[in-house]
Amino acid sequence: MTSTTSGTRPALNGVDTPTLFATLDAVKASPELAKFQFRATNRWISGTNNRSTIRGFYGAGQEDTSRTEDFTYDADHPAVLVGTGKGPTPVEFLLHAIAACLTAGLANIAAARGITLRRVTSTVEGDIDLLGILGLSDQVRNGYRQIRVRFEVDGDASPEELAALVERSRLRSAVYDVLANGTDVQVDVGTR
Amino acid sequence: MTSTTSGTRPALNGVDTPTLFATLDAVKASPELAKFQFRATNRWISGTNNRSTIRGFYGAGQEDTSRTEDFTYDADHPAVLVGTGKGPTPVEFLLHAIAACLTAGLANIAAARGITLRRVTSTVEGDIDLLGILGLSDQVRNGYRQIRVRFEVDGDASPEELAALVERSRLRSAVYDVLANGTDVQVDVGTR
Repeated sequence: MTSTTSGTRPALNGVDTPTLFATLDAVKASPELAKFQFRATNRWISGTNNRSTIRGFYGAGQEDTSRTEDFTYDADHPAVLVGTGKGPTPVEFLLHAIAACLTAGLANIAAARGITLRRVTSTVEGDIDLLGILGLSDQVRNGYRQIRVRFEVDGDASPEELAALVERSRLRSAVYDVLANGTDVQVDVGTR
Repeated sequence: MTSTTSGTRPALNGVDTPTLFATLDAVKASPELAKFQFRATNRWISGTNNRSTIRGFYGAGQEDTSRTEDFTYDADHPAVLVGTGKGPTPVEFLLHAIAACLTAGLANIAAARGITLRRVTSTVEGDIDLLGILGLSDQVRNGYRQIRVRFEVDGDASPEELAALVERSRLRSAVYDVLANGTDVQVDVGTR
């Protein structure tokens, strides 16, 4: 760590650190800019195969127009679960989400702290007993019993400083918070 | 609904219903077949852009070998959050996951009940105040305040029966359970 103040750190790790700090200042001045709404739409295809489309969101006081194309993702069950394997299972996308959220945060935090990263990888495992979702046991929950994320971080700092990046990222992770603590989920239906 | 028993229902909605019921019987007889472990690996690319790879999993008593290619997914932050928009944000993948899980379950349940589906679509919205993850407020949580899933279901059954498919799917959804109730998430790090 150098004596450079956070506000004058240069871009690092592909993070535009000056803009990041300017954004923080802007939100501090106008907290309503921090209100975001993300969205996805999904369409059933056949069997357990379906497809989500992600594009628009609201944030920083307006509808975002920066995305010029849809992101589309298939999900499916594998053959062993009587699906056609045209995509990962829905629960595997949760593992992608937690790894991605922690990694993005880690890169931002490293840049803010002036730490150059060389390589960040992670592996995520989720244990689930399907007796719950198969309706074969009321004693077994439907979801993951446990999710484990293991990071390997290579960068220009001590092992303790690199480990502290992971911990700080966890403490500021939106996906970690939702997966660890849950949130209010409302499901409703219109038929036609 | 006909008087056909569940065990003799034909394939429907792209769901191989006989195999689905045979699978349920097999798991009933050998509950250890229901123990699954799903996995993802992630690699940081630059800034908030990173990429997950999903392929192998353990389940039904063995390592799955049915997937012949990796599934890979980029995540990123959008420009307004000082990212490069090379993928959706990690939290948007949570919205895909909940829609996909509820939809896959719905198709299975409809097949088991002998209900022909014509069209199933859903929209998901997630409200999040970024004052939490930006470290600007200790009063605001990091994750979504609320997630709303709205289904439209068109099929060969009454509105009440179609709505009951959504409700049953929610009650048996792995992703719903994790997002609504949270789970044990362990994060650790090795440095090198």
